[in-house]
Amino acid sequence: MADHTTPASDQLAAVTLKDDVSASTVKKHRFSDRVLIRSIMSRPDGGAGKENIKQTFSNLCFLILLLPQILLTTGLAGQRVRVGGWVKTGREQGKGSFAFLEVNDGSCPANLQVIVDAAVADLAQLVQTGTSVSVEGLLKNPPEGTRQRVELQVEKVIDVGTVDPAKYPIPKTKLSLEFLRDRIHFRPRTNKISAVARIRNALAFANHTFFQEHGFLYVHTPIVTTNDCEGAGEMFQVTTLINEAERVSDKAELTPGIPQKDGKIDYGKDFFGRQAFLTVSGQLQVETYACAVGNVYTFGPTFRAENSHTCRHLAEFWMVEPEIAFADLKDDMNCAEAYVKFMCHWLLEKCLDDMEFMAKNYDKTCIDRLRMVASTPFERISYTEAVELLLVAEGTKFEKAVEWGIDLASEHERYLTEVKFQKPVIVYNYPKGIKAFYMRVNDDLNTVAAMDVLVPKIGELIGGSQREERIDIIKDRILEMGLPLDPYEWYLDLRRFGTVKYCGFSLGLILFATGIDKIRDVIPFPRYPGRADL
Amino acid sequence: MADHTTPASDQLAAVTLKDDVSASTVKKHRFSDRVLIRSIMSRPDGGAGKENIKQTFSNLCFLILLLPQILLTTGLAGQRVRVGGWVKTGREQGKGSFAFLEVNDGSCPANLQVIVDAAVADLAQLVQTGTSVSVEGLLKNPPEGTRQRVELQVEKVIDVGTVDPAKYPIPKTKLSLEFLRDRIHFRPRTNKISAVARIRNALAFANHTFFQEHGFLYVHTPIVTTNDCEGAGEMFQVTTLINEAERVSDKAELTPGIPQKDGKIDYGKDFFGRQAFLTVSGQLQVETYACAVGNVYTFGPTFRAENSHTCRHLAEFWMVEPEIAFADLKDDMNCAEAYVKFMCHWLLEKCLDDMEFMAKNYDKTCIDRLRMVASTPFERISYTEAVELLLVAEGTKFEKAVEWGIDLASEHERYLTEVKFQKPVIVYNYPKGIKAFYMRVNDDLNTVAAMDVLVPKIGELIGGSQREERIDIIKDRILEMGLPLDPYEWYLDLRRFGTVKYCGFSLGLILFATGIDKIRDVIPFPRYPGRADL
Repeated sequence: MADHTTPASDQLAAVTLKDDVSASTVKKHRFSDRVLIRSIMSRPDGGAGKENIKQTFSNLCFLILLLPQILLTTGLAGQRVRVGGWVKTGREQGKGSFAFLEVNDGSCPANLQVIVDAAVADLAQLVQTGTSVSVEGLLKNPPEGTRQRVELQVEKVIDVGTVDPAKYPIPKTKLSLEFLRDRIHFRPRTNKISAVARIRNALAFANHTFFQEHGFLYVHTPIVTTNDCEGAGEMFQVTTLINEAERVSDKAELTPGIPQKDGKIDYGKDFFGRQAFLTVSGQLQVETYACAVGNVYTFGPTFRAENSHTCRHLAEFWMVEPEIAFADLKDDMNCAEAYVKFMCHWLLEKCLDDMEFMAKNYDKTCIDRLRMVASTPFERISYTEAVELLLVAEGTKFEKAVEWGIDLASEHERYLTEVKFQKPVIVYNYPKGIKAFYMRVNDDLNTVAAMDVLVPKIGELIGGSQREERIDIIKDRILEMGLPLDPYEWYLDLRRFGTVKYCGFSLGLILFATGIDKIRDVIPFPRYPGRADL
Repeated sequence: MADHTTPASDQLAAVTLKDDVSASTVKKHRFSDRVLIRSIMSRPDGGAGKENIKQTFSNLCFLILLLPQILLTTGLAGQRVRVGGWVKTGREQGKGSFAFLEVNDGSCPANLQVIVDAAVADLAQLVQTGTSVSVEGLLKNPPEGTRQRVELQVEKVIDVGTVDPAKYPIPKTKLSLEFLRDRIHFRPRTNKISAVARIRNALAFANHTFFQEHGFLYVHTPIVTTNDCEGAGEMFQVTTLINEAERVSDKAELTPGIPQKDGKIDYGKDFFGRQAFLTVSGQLQVETYACAVGNVYTFGPTFRAENSHTCRHLAEFWMVEPEIAFADLKDDMNCAEAYVKFMCHWLLEKCLDDMEFMAKNYDKTCIDRLRMVASTPFERISYTEAVELLLVAEGTKFEKAVEWGIDLASEHERYLTEVKFQKPVIVYNYPKGIKAFYMRVNDDLNTVAAMDVLVPKIGELIGGSQREERIDIIKDRILEMGLPLDPYEWYLDLRRFGTVKYCGFSLGLILFATGIDKIRDVIPFPRYPGRADL
């Protein structure tokens, strides 16, 4: 079996999709008999080969240098490939003698045009939207003047997964995102949601790549936590007591089954021996690693039990939280800015076709915005400066009155980024009273070393701070906020024993990129009040 | 501000730690004033430069070719650097005139030897284990005959985080893993747990790298699920009803607060409008993406409410689950084998120093095992062949009797991998009766296209299968197993409309690599019955 053995890891690294698209032949996928449509359509020549040759001849100086490349870029016509995917749209032609199918396999937004003769298969079945096909044939150059640059002439139909168009829940007509949310298991078959899936995948991997390149360790912080940091009211409880009760009571009266003690639920009998919740943030836990192995980050799901129905809130969402050891607020801002720019560059480089789809369908400015953020140095102003600018903002009337000490509202943030500076803005040194206890108190004693990264259209993208490393001051801050010290003793220990200067920030995986308004449409399986499909 | 702007992404990609260790000067970390100790200690020359020069002169033929390299490898002596880390061990010398500190910053297992004169700082404070230091000075070559290859002569102490040795919970003595589990916020400061953290980080990133290189999209499957696939008994319930009840009842009698209907809990009033659980697997949900965009994988936390106290079980653990579209069981086995080999190569390449630490302290054979698995083609045998081999196993008496139809026990798996073949073994085509409903029924009607990857010492590392794509057969299988069809209608829809041939597998992030016995020590924050610290 040829596939049975494996090349050494340096060779493995070379087996990338990138290599496929520049090679003279299109490579089959390593773990399937098919080729990914992306390895045909995402070639610089779109599979046709013509354009590269034209380009080359237009500049004779390079002819000799580029000769090997010319030989390699004669296009894919004549190559035998097998592809698998779903029919986006199909139509019979020539009085039913053949059919055109637009086939998409999810590897890129582009469809491959596939031509099937009536002699080869039952065309009426193949042309239905949603039909899956696995077909083999020859790639060929289409007639001059047609839109596509390469097409597949099918010689053999390997597999067909049929669709009854009368019953298919995702018809070919344009479907609203609301409609799709009710058919969650089918929505990745649409152009929109599959583009979002590729963008989200790119952002997730870019995120890991950025931190790994800079020597941050990925730490899996816990999902189930007994550390109620932000008030139990907004947390989901995790329990086996109710299940147990329902089992014991054998479907009769339930409540006697829930163990009680002194009139309260006896959590000593719950799975973890105490009350447990879903995490709202891995920050405090990942800090135990920052204070031991230096630069770290966590990336995982976090939860909010807020009964919120806005476009910007979900009950379950993925959050990125890095911590930088032996670093201060300036370092934190540098890291946050470099991170955001890296993510933008990555999308422009790896997902331009998907971004172009988004620009066409949802938000004309989304690519320009990525380019601007990627290339423009962020403005950095203190909170006090920001308030001064807002107080003299000409031609703008804010709903929420501006005065030193308020939490900036979305309208204020958008004024700064969209009107005043027209670029991303980092606001730092916020009033102590509106920020969390773990943020480092500045020498003025009124502000803390916190910073928010604000971007046009979205507002706050990132929030971060230098952490308070001084044991006495952080204890005072906890008590000042009316919180008990006891649950934080482990966190205080990090300051008691070998404390260090460090900082961090957090952000959700972003709405910012796609131009889609509702966060429910940028996560595969959205959870919000009343909804947790699948 | 020089740090204010950012290089383009192609330049960014070049700013890797890899580059640092081969350069002639040691680079400071991009987001801190310090250099990572790894960029000194993990250079091929250990920072000394001498060895490379010696090697070069021993082979005169290459002298001219390597001249530039010689100039670049004169070592780091004379360079001014700032480092930050924690004192592993320290001692005063020369009647208190100076101190040696072994400083570790978590970026690699090696410590940097740091020398501080009494004139520069209070030595008694610095030498305590656990003290954090940020220090600046000159790198120099140590006297001939000493173990270390480069050391730091401190000129300035920037910051110190002191430790009272009488109170420090992690003394310098050798500590058991049990002891450390009770001091979870300090255990990453130990050599063992920090090595595990780096290995786990490497595996997580290797995992993403493998799938991204082969064109798989990372899909975030939900943590909260209303899809009770594997029996609610083993699942954690997620609810806001109890919190609400406790709030309403104002700390008096609780249970009246939990809403009921017809003598049962009224989940219509719960956050999601129905009973919700923590996921046990993202497989079925990720399959909706496999049947839409092709190759996908999920990697996230999963949960089991089993009251299990074994070494191999956790209530919360991270699982990897890829699905390959337009692929069959052979493809699945090829992918699983390539994946395991890739992970082994990656560890040997990126974490050899940590693996050497593990080999020295926990499991002498762990590196040899990685090498063997990375380089040896896996044996592939059918379940029926495996049973035949077990029935004639000479010199081995099994506790569980072998006959066709049983689920293989750990003792059987270990016999196959450790005694019979002495290498990884993939067993495929298992009896239908012991496998899940979604596995594809083979033409013999008695077996399903399932496969398990077994490795020495661990047993089953990966379980996978081709998925049943035929609507009628999968419906029969669900009913045969006594399950209701209704909750699976969305899953059946994937077969009703545009069904495809596909397969997948799953595995937990692995114990296999480190040689550590207890899974509680290879995850940062272990959750098991009675324990969910932090």
